[in-house]
Amino acid sequence: MNIFGRILRLASFGESHGAAIGGVLDGFPAGMDLDLLQVQQALDHRNPSQVLTGSGRLESDRIEFLSGIWQGKSLGTPIAFLIRNQDARSEDYAFLEKAFRPGHADDTWQAKYGIRDYRGGGRASARETAVRVAGGALARQLTDKIGIHISAYVSQIGTLRLEKPFEQIDSQNVYSYRTRCPDPAADAAMLSYLHRIREAGDSVGGVVECQVSRMPKGLGEPVFDKLTARLASAMMGINAARGFEMGQGFAAARMKGSEHNDQWMPDGTTRQNLCGGARGGISTGENLVFRVAFKPIPTIARTQALLVGSGVPAGESRLESAVLPGRHDVCCVPRAVSVVEAMTSLVLADMCLLARCSKAGLSEN
Amino acid sequence: MNIFGRILRLASFGESHGAAIGGVLDGFPAGMDLDLLQVQQALDHRNPSQVLTGSGRLESDRIEFLSGIWQGKSLGTPIAFLIRNQDARSEDYAFLEKAFRPGHADDTWQAKYGIRDYRGGGRASARETAVRVAGGALARQLTDKIGIHISAYVSQIGTLRLEKPFEQIDSQNVYSYRTRCPDPAADAAMLSYLHRIREAGDSVGGVVECQVSRMPKGLGEPVFDKLTARLASAMMGINAARGFEMGQGFAAARMKGSEHNDQWMPDGTTRQNLCGGARGGISTGENLVFRVAFKPIPTIARTQALLVGSGVPAGESRLESAVLPGRHDVCCVPRAVSVVEAMTSLVLADMCLLARCSKAGLSEN
Amino acid sequence: MNIFGRILRLASFGESHGAAIGGVLDGFPAGMDLDLLQVQQALDHRNPSQVLTGSGRLESDRIEFLSGIWQGKSLGTPIAFLIRNQDARSEDYAFLEKAFRPGHADDTWQAKYGIRDYRGGGRASARETAVRVAGGALARQLTDKIGIHISAYVSQIGTLRLEKPFEQIDSQNVYSYRTRCPDPAADAAMLSYLHRIREAGDSVGGVVECQVSRMPKGLGEPVFDKLTARLASAMMGINAARGFEMGQGFAAARMKGSEHNDQWMPDGTTRQNLCGGARGGISTGENLVFRVAFKPIPTIARTQALLVGSGVPAGESRLESAVLPGRHDVCCVPRAVSVVEAMTSLVLADMCLLARCSKAGLSEN
Amino acid sequence: MNIFGRILRLASFGESHGAAIGGVLDGFPAGMDLDLLQVQQALDHRNPSQVLTGSGRLESDRIEFLSGIWQGKSLGTPIAFLIRNQDARSEDYAFLEKAFRPGHADDTWQAKYGIRDYRGGGRASARETAVRVAGGALARQLTDKIGIHISAYVSQIGTLRLEKPFEQIDSQNVYSYRTRCPDPAADAAMLSYLHRIREAGDSVGGVVECQVSRMPKGLGEPVFDKLTARLASAMMGINAARGFEMGQGFAAARMKGSEHNDQWMPDGTTRQNLCGGARGGISTGENLVFRVAFKPIPTIARTQALLVGSGVPAGESRLESAVLPGRHDVCCVPRAVSVVEAMTSLVLADMCLLARCSKAGLSEN
Repeated sequence: MNIFGRILRLASFGESHGAAIGGVLDGFPAGMDLDLLQVQQALDHRNPSQVLTGSGRLESDRIEFLSGIWQGKSLGTPIAFLIRNQDARSEDYAFLEKAFRPGHADDTWQAKYGIRDYRGGGRASARETAVRVAGGALARQLTDKIGIHISAYVSQIGTLRLEKPFEQIDSQNVYSYRTRCPDPAADAAMLSYLHRIREAGDSVGGVVECQVSRMPKGLGEPVFDKLTARLASAMMGINAARGFEMGQGFAAARMKGSEHNDQWMPDGTTRQNLCGGARGGISTGENLVFRVAFKPIPTIARTQALLVGSGVPAGESRLESAVLPGRHDVCCVPRAVSVVEAMTSLVLADMCLLARCSKAGLSEN
Repeated sequence: MNIFGRILRLASFGESHGAAIGGVLDGFPAGMDLDLLQVQQALDHRNPSQVLTGSGRLESDRIEFLSGIWQGKSLGTPIAFLIRNQDARSEDYAFLEKAFRPGHADDTWQAKYGIRDYRGGGRASARETAVRVAGGALARQLTDKIGIHISAYVSQIGTLRLEKPFEQIDSQNVYSYRTRCPDPAADAAMLSYLHRIREAGDSVGGVVECQVSRMPKGLGEPVFDKLTARLASAMMGINAARGFEMGQGFAAARMKGSEHNDQWMPDGTTRQNLCGGARGGISTGENLVFRVAFKPIPTIARTQALLVGSGVPAGESRLESAVLPGRHDVCCVPRAVSVVEAMTSLVLADMCLLARCSKAGLSEN
Repeated sequence: MNIFGRILRLASFGESHGAAIGGVLDGFPAGMDLDLLQVQQALDHRNPSQVLTGSGRLESDRIEFLSGIWQGKSLGTPIAFLIRNQDARSEDYAFLEKAFRPGHADDTWQAKYGIRDYRGGGRASARETAVRVAGGALARQLTDKIGIHISAYVSQIGTLRLEKPFEQIDSQNVYSYRTRCPDPAADAAMLSYLHRIREAGDSVGGVVECQVSRMPKGLGEPVFDKLTARLASAMMGINAARGFEMGQGFAAARMKGSEHNDQWMPDGTTRQNLCGGARGGISTGENLVFRVAFKPIPTIARTQALLVGSGVPAGESRLESAVLPGRHDVCCVPRAVSVVEAMTSLVLADMCLLARCSKAGLSEN
Repeated sequence: MNIFGRILRLASFGESHGAAIGGVLDGFPAGMDLDLLQVQQALDHRNPSQVLTGSGRLESDRIEFLSGIWQGKSLGTPIAFLIRNQDARSEDYAFLEKAFRPGHADDTWQAKYGIRDYRGGGRASARETAVRVAGGALARQLTDKIGIHISAYVSQIGTLRLEKPFEQIDSQNVYSYRTRCPDPAADAAMLSYLHRIREAGDSVGGVVECQVSRMPKGLGEPVFDKLTARLASAMMGINAARGFEMGQGFAAARMKGSEHNDQWMPDGTTRQNLCGGARGGISTGENLVFRVAFKPIPTIARTQALLVGSGVPAGESRLESAVLPGRHDVCCVPRAVSVVEAMTSLVLADMCLLARCSKAGLSEN
C-alpha cells in the first residue's frame, strides 16, 4: 500500500495540506557516506521554473532528517525524514467537500475510503512524489556507489517529440533545461508550446524517457519480480502515469523476430540494444531504456462540469459548471523527471541488494 | 521472486523440461464451490491451434490438485497443483549448454545464477505461464462470484490491428477464434498473415487488450499498490511483454486536458471512460481497459548467429551461425490471452480481499 | 526489519539520542474516530514513577501526529507520528565509543553494522519501545471497537510472584499501581523489594502477564502465522525479553494429556482454559493468557569489567573496570507492561483485518 | 499464512489425508551442491521408533523433487517437493464431521473457515511438519556450508529432565537414541516412563532444547526481526508448542543484573553465555541456546467427552463420551526434535542471506 520495495523499503506518508509529508527508508546498508545536500538538490530539481510550467505554489520543500544517519554515515537503521507543508491555501479547496472534479481521483478515493482529505487533493496529490524523490535520492547514493548512472528526461510534450538519439542529447545537464528536455532547440520549442497551452487555459501530457547506463548484468528476480515488472510497477504508481514501455515497447508488437532479435557483438553486447537492457526480466548490462507516458493534468483554467452532491451515491448528484481554483502546472512531465529517476533508483538499489542473495559460494558474513 | 500477491499469493515453480511445473495458491478464502474443470479448460485455452500459430509440442497439460480442496470446496488452506512435463525433447537443446541465442534470456540467466537449466529454456520458458493460467483460473472463480467479468483478446498481430470498438466484437467467444481475435474478418486476416510469417521462417509480435466489466468501484491500494501499478507489474512479468498502457495510454501523452478529462454523466459515470477505469490508481467502476505489447518470439527458422563459448565471460566467446532446432510458435499473443486473463484475475482477486480491510465499521468477523 | 505486521504495518524509526523517534502506521482502516489523547496517555503510562523504578531521565514524550488523521477521523492513509528526543545527556556515553558493556548489545550491533550510534544505546535502546506504545495505542482503538479487552500487568519481579488468579486482581486499574502489579499487597512488597535492589546497586528481572478477554473466535493464520507465533514474535522482539509462554506454557511439558486437555462445557467453552485461548494457533474465544519473561537490566551501579578496544576484533581488546554512568531503571517490567499491551494490540488488530479475508461469501466491497 | 521467511521462503501445503503434502522453497541460492539423501534422512529421523513413542501409522514419507535442482545443483529457482499421503485410515475420522475433540483445534478451524477437512486433523495435523523438515533439510545445507552446526534434542519428557550440561551429552548422535534424548541413562529412563504413560492410556508433554554452535556474529534484524523474535515465531508455529525461551529464559526473571550480566572474557566471548547467544536480538557468535515446551498430545486412549452438534454454534451442541479412535504418539517431543532443527535452519539460512544486505562496501554483484 504505502511501502515500496523488498529489502530497501520506503514507507511514504502525508497529505498535501496536512502537517507534513515524509518517509522512512528501511534496509539501507550501514556505513555509507551520505551527501544530504544531494537529497535537498533532488527536491529542488522537482520544482521546475514557475514561469511557464510550474504552479504558483512555492514549495520550498526543506527536508529534515530524523534518524538513521550519524556523523555523515548511514547507521543501517531506518532513515526517517519529513518535509513540512507550507503555503497551503486550503480555503481554495473548500468547494471540493461535496464536488468531484473531472479527471481527478476525488470520487474514487471517496468510494474506497468513505472519507477523504479534499484539501489540495489530500494524499492523491502529486505533492506526495516529493517523498519518493527524497527516498530515491538516498537510494541513488547506493546505485552511484555501485557505478550505475541513471538519467531521465522529457522526450515528448503533447505532440512535440525529441527525435535525437540519446547519444546526441545533453543528458548530463537535464536539470538546466526548463522543460527537462536536454536539447536546446527542443527545449525552446516545448517552452513556446507550453506557453500557448497555458494561454489557452489548457494542459497537456507528455513522455519521460529514462536511460540507465553502466548497469551490472544480472539484476532482476524472475519470474514475478523481473526488472521489467518492478520498473513498471514503480512507474505506473506515479501520479498521472498511463503507460510504460521498455526497449522497443509497443513498436515491438509490429516487428518481426528477424528485425527485433538483438544481434550479438563478439563481446557479448548487442548491435542495437533493441530489448532495452533486459532479457527475461534480467539486466543485460547494456543501457536500460524505458519510457513512461503521462496524461495531461486534469485541472485546467476553463469552465468544466463538476459532479456535485452530498456524497458518493451518484443518484443524488447533479452537474454544475465551474472554473476550478487552485494553482496547477500546465504539464507534469518536467516535474516527473525527478520522480522517474527516484523510483528507478529505489528499484535498482533494491535489486542490487537482492542480487547479493542469488548465488551460493560468496563468503558468508 | 516467485511468489505473486499480497493476501492471495501464488507461488510458482518448475522448469520447462524438469519433472513438473506447478503452484501453491495461498490465501484463497474458504468455503467456495470450485469448478476444477474450468481450471483445466483455461489450460486448454492456452494451447491454441497448432496448425498456424502453435509449436509442434503437444502440451496436454493435465493438472493434478494436491491440497486445499475437499468435497468440491476450498478449505481456506493452500491449493497446490502440478502439471507433469511430457513430450520434452531435451536433446534438441544440448547445443545450448555453451551457446547463447539472440533475443533469448540465456546469457542473463547464466550471468545472474552462474548456472541454468538450458533444456527448453528452463524456467525462462513461457511454459511457466501455464502455472499462472491455472492459479488465475482459481482466482477467477472468486472474481466471477463477485460479478467481475474479465475478457482479454488479441487486438493486434504485427501490423494488423483490430479497429472495431469493444462493443462490436464477439468478446464472449474469444477462445473459439484461432488467433483469439474475436472478429471473423480480423481473425481470418491474421491467420493468413501468420501463415505467411511462418512460411518466411519468421515470427511476429502483437498486442493483447483486456477489458474488465462490472468492476466494483474502489479497488486499488495507493500510493504504491495502485491498480495501475499492480496490473503493470503483473503484465510486464509475463514472458515477452514489452509495454503496458491503461485507457488512452501513450496516446494520452499527446492529448490536452480539455480532451482527456472524462466528462461526467449525471449518474457519476463518464462519457468516454478515457481513463480506462482507474483514477488515482483506484477503480472507477467503469470498464478497466488496458493493453499489453509483446515482442516477436526470438526463435525463428532462419540462420542466426549464436554467441558460443565456455561460459559468461564474453571475451572467450565467438559467433557461430546456426538454425535453431526446437519447436516454437510463430506468434505468442494467441497464447498470451489466457495468461493476461489469469494475471488480471490474480490481481483483482487480491485487490478485492485487500479492499475488505480498507474501511472501519464493517461488522468484524 | 523495522516494519511489523501484514496488513496493519508499523514502520518504526529513531535512535535514543537522535533528533526524534517515531513511526508510520500503514493499513489503518478509514473512517474511525480516533482519540489521540489515549495515545498520549499510553505513552505516559510507559513512564512509571521515577521514585523507585524509573530512571532519572525525564521523557516527557510529547507525540506529534503528521498525517493520516483529519477532523478526528482516520483517513485510511498512513498515520505518521514523531516524538522529539529531549533531555539526552549524550556526553555520559562518550566512553562507549570504544567500550562494550557487559550484557548490552554494543558488540553485536558493532559487529553487524560496522558502525553504531552509541549515545544512549542508539537504536538498541528501549526508548524505541515508545514508538510501539504509540502505534499500539492506535491499533488498540481498532481492537477496542471490535470489543476486545487487553490487560497486561506485572506478575513477577525477581523472586516475588503475584499468586492470585486474574479474577481476583484489580486488572482495571493496572496503571494506578506503581509497579504495575495490580494487587495492593503485592505492589507494596514489590516496591519495597525494588528499593532494596536499588540500594544494593543492582537490578532485577520480572514477568509480564497479559490476558485478553472478549476475544473473537477464529483469529490466527495457520500454519506459520498462528496467533501463538505472531504473539511470540511480537513479544520476543521487545528489548530484554527472554521467554514467552501461552496458557500452561512450560508447565504443560510436565503434564499428562488427561490433565491438560481442556474439558468442554456444554456451551463450547472449556472448564479451565488451559490452552490460554488458542488451539491450533487460532483463538478459541476464551481469554488469551500469555507471559513474557524479561531479564534484569544490565546497567547496574556497581563496578563491572568493560571490554575496551579499538573496535570489534577481540584480539585487540582488554578488560577495564568501571561503574557505568547514565540513568537506568532498576527493573524494566513496570515499563514493559504498556509495551506488551501495545504489541498485543498490533498483532490482534492485524489478525482481525486478515480474518476479514479468510472466508468466501461475505458481501464484497 | 502458509509462507515462512523473508528471502528464503518456504510455502507449505497439504492436508493429512489429502493427496499429498509438500512445499516450494523460493530464494535458495544458485549453484549449491545438494545432497538429497540428507533430506530423505531428515524425514526418516522425524519418524521415531514406533514401539513406544510412535503412532501405528507408517509414514514412509518418500519425497519427490519436482523443480529447482539439476545435475545435483540448485538452480536458484524454486525447489518444489511433495510427499504423497499413504496408509491413511480416513474412516477412523468420520465421527469428527460433527464432533469436536477436547484439546484439539477442531472447533477453532471450523469457526475460522466455516469448513474443515476433519480426516486425520486435516491441515491442523502434525503431519504438515514433514514439509518443514524437508524444507529445513535443504536450508540446512546452506547453514552447513557456512559452518553453522545445529543440534536439537529432547531435554525433558513429563517430569523427567536431562540434567547434564550440553558438553557432556552425546549431541552428535541424537537420532540414535529412541527418545532423542542423547544420554544413555536418561534415554532409558524416559523410554520406561513413556511405556508406563502408554499403558495408562495417557500422553505427556516435554521440552526440546536446541544448541547452535559455530554461529557467525551479527545475525538478526532489529528491531522487529531480531533473532529471538524470528526463532520464537518459528518455534511457536510448531504444532503443540506452548513456550519458548532463550538462554536463561524464564529463570532470568528471577535473577539480578549482577548475576545475569555476561562477564567478558578477554577474547570478547563471555564466561557463561547466559544470554544464549543473542544480545539485542543479534547473534554474539557464541552458542545459541533455546528451549521449546510442548504440551501433551490431546488424543489419549481414555474415555473423554466430545462436543457434538451440527456445527459451530455451541447452543446446539451436547457432550458425548467416547474413546477416540486413530493412532497417535504418546509424546510428541521425539518427533519434534527434527522439526525444531528444520525451523532453526530455515531461520538461520534466511538471516544469513539478509545479513549480506546489511553493510555497504561489499563488492556489488
